[in-house]
Amino acid sequence: MKFRITPIDGGVCAVDGIYASGVNAGFKQDGYDLGFIRSDKELDVAYLFTTNKFQAAPIKYVLNRGIKTTNFILANSKNANAMTGDEGIKDIEEILEFLSQKISIKNPIMSSTGVIGVRLDKEKIKKGIEKFDFNEKNSNKFAKAIMTTDSFEKEIAFEVEGDFGKFRIGGVAKGAGMINPAMATMLCFITTDANIPQNEMQEILKEVNEVTFNAISVDGDTSTNDSVFLMTTRDGGYEREAFKEALKQVMQKLALDIVKDGEGATKAVAFVVTGAKSKEEAKIVAKNLTTSLLVKTALFGEDPNWGRIASTVGASNVECDEKRLKIAFENIVVYDRGNIIFDEETERKAHEIMKRREFKIYVDLGIGEGAFTGYGCDLSYDYVKINAEYRT
Amino acid sequence: MKFRITPIDGGVCAVDGIYASGVNAGFKQDGYDLGFIRSDKELDVAYLFTTNKFQAAPIKYVLNRGIKTTNFILANSKNANAMTGDEGIKDIEEILEFLSQKISIKNPIMSSTGVIGVRLDKEKIKKGIEKFDFNEKNSNKFAKAIMTTDSFEKEIAFEVEGDFGKFRIGGVAKGAGMINPAMATMLCFITTDANIPQNEMQEILKEVNEVTFNAISVDGDTSTNDSVFLMTTRDGGYEREAFKEALKQVMQKLALDIVKDGEGATKAVAFVVTGAKSKEEAKIVAKNLTTSLLVKTALFGEDPNWGRIASTVGASNVECDEKRLKIAFENIVVYDRGNIIFDEETERKAHEIMKRREFKIYVDLGIGEGAFTGYGCDLSYDYVKINAEYRT
Repeated sequence: MKFRITPIDGGVCAVDGIYASGVNAGFKQDGYDLGFIRSDKELDVAYLFTTNKFQAAPIKYVLNRGIKTTNFILANSKNANAMTGDEGIKDIEEILEFLSQKISIKNPIMSSTGVIGVRLDKEKIKKGIEKFDFNEKNSNKFAKAIMTTDSFEKEIAFEVEGDFGKFRIGGVAKGAGMINPAMATMLCFITTDANIPQNEMQEILKEVNEVTFNAISVDGDTSTNDSVFLMTTRDGGYEREAFKEALKQVMQKLALDIVKDGEGATKAVAFVVTGAKSKEEAKIVAKNLTTSLLVKTALFGEDPNWGRIASTVGASNVECDEKRLKIAFENIVVYDRGNIIFDEETERKAHEIMKRREFKIYVDLGIGEGAFTGYGCDLSYDYVKINAEYRT
Repeated sequence: MKFRITPIDGGVCAVDGIYASGVNAGFKQDGYDLGFIRSDKELDVAYLFTTNKFQAAPIKYVLNRGIKTTNFILANSKNANAMTGDEGIKDIEEILEFLSQKISIKNPIMSSTGVIGVRLDKEKIKKGIEKFDFNEKNSNKFAKAIMTTDSFEKEIAFEVEGDFGKFRIGGVAKGAGMINPAMATMLCFITTDANIPQNEMQEILKEVNEVTFNAISVDGDTSTNDSVFLMTTRDGGYEREAFKEALKQVMQKLALDIVKDGEGATKAVAFVVTGAKSKEEAKIVAKNLTTSLLVKTALFGEDPNWGRIASTVGASNVECDEKRLKIAFENIVVYDRGNIIFDEETERKAHEIMKRREFKIYVDLGIGEGAFTGYGCDLSYDYVKINAEYRT
């Protein structure tokens, strides 16, 4: 691979021709809650949506129309427009009709996140639209506008150079709770000028999603609104491997930001599962480790209670054998294929590792070649606080 | 059905010929931590064990020997004897050999609960055995001896009378965390004198278990040690329906006690799922509702956030349709087949219901005839506290 990936500023606006911004439409007490990403030209768009059967109205709207190109994305936080039935879709139509009186739009897309089961306040959104400066190029304002319980905005951009010339790629995401490998209340918007063929967009997006957003979990709940959008102006160069790698770096950065910002999380932990019978079985184990309440509370307590990890593996209904299993906290092996290596010294070292903000736990099943790395966080008092008090 | 079920005292010792007690063997600072249930005659025994692939040593010991009758159960708390390999089984053999020098035992069974991945302290257990008064009939001491994070002992007994004569049945259980529909760190011991045929014991136990212990969840984790034992002296009467009903009442009482005693739980909630395509799909939905962190924290916050319930149904990968779904908190319908019925008055009423210690949430999918009721609890700060600090 002869290409170089360099981080640059600008988020989604790092790509020429992309405008973005955010305003306060009155959903949040202060701070941005309504934003847009747009371009003057039509952009090819690929997308992935939640596997939740109750897909929110904005997702149904896009799927019903089979949108393939767009020049405008409108996004709001605080209301998911989910479980709102046909009225939810009509609300989107009315809002986008209003928007079309302000600026020329083609196949506009709306994207929402927030509380489920409440109709959108269209008037607030219209008033917010009135405030838009369509010529702003401020990715950060957009990133802020889509935040719900997020504590920081999630943005990244790269410039990629190689024999093929160069392209740029930028992304913005939100998500802090209701996050699960099946893509859950996270929204992600990626712009690029890579000249990627339309038929490869969807394929590459799906492939990269599997090892990035589908590898993270905050709480095991899969939302009604998860969406990842990839849009291109096609003005730059393109080479498949370079693009795939850059897209992976963008999505991995944003996915890990979501884990680090997990509601109440104090730690981000990578569960590196190897030696499973298949990749699928490795993924099941990794997912169960990231969602087990007993594992998550042990992480919070910085307790190297490897028995809970072993028990979670055993409960995963995958092929496993306690005489082949191996568990390590970073380089500290605590259980080695039937042998408990957990003297005071080992425990102390494992405990030290768990005090870190980020670390890896290795679980080798010793059965086959299947491998998958899942990313999770701990479960703290604050998770309970945030979610017990969210709506009221 | 012509029979009468009357609650009586005595727990497992309500049955004639059953002895039980508990002592402090030094695992707990104070309080009982080692106990026995025994009889002079051999008892037919049926059992169900965890689906966790890493079954603990005591379970492997019973399965390896294919035990069908026994006259002695030895149980300890604070150490699960799990992930301890062949040594874990040898430890059991040595302990039971020691026990056989104190009292005549036939096919003794050991049962353990506690921390995973630590060898049993055989000397402590032997010293505990030395303290046993084998002629005690004190079910309550045994119930205390198997408690881990439990805050109260779980016991029940009934006398059943009918045309067939009469029999008694008594049970003891433990469990407060790591509880999941697939039977998780819960131990349950049931004695009876019902003259149940050996071939019906296993069948009825399994059937009743499906709607009792397999219907509860505290945290979604399935332990290495879950066990339910049913033992009979065969000295009493028997009638299949009467026995099944009495067994169900015993197991349901103990299962609900476990939910009520869920680690840090402030509420016990029944999720009554109906109208699913099949019983299996109803069970999946009920299980997901009892394990969803967002639902559990909403219960703790007494927040009638029905959107989280809907989202969990949609994420369950079962046949469902938002235009057919109906959700109610007891008799307060909040979402009715496409219509959001959630004005201030409805919200206030639903909130009032959620303040109760116990209540029901009804979820009708409106698709088919499948029904299942799952029992769960809320997720509180104390759950995190108990589990973050458990081992250290």
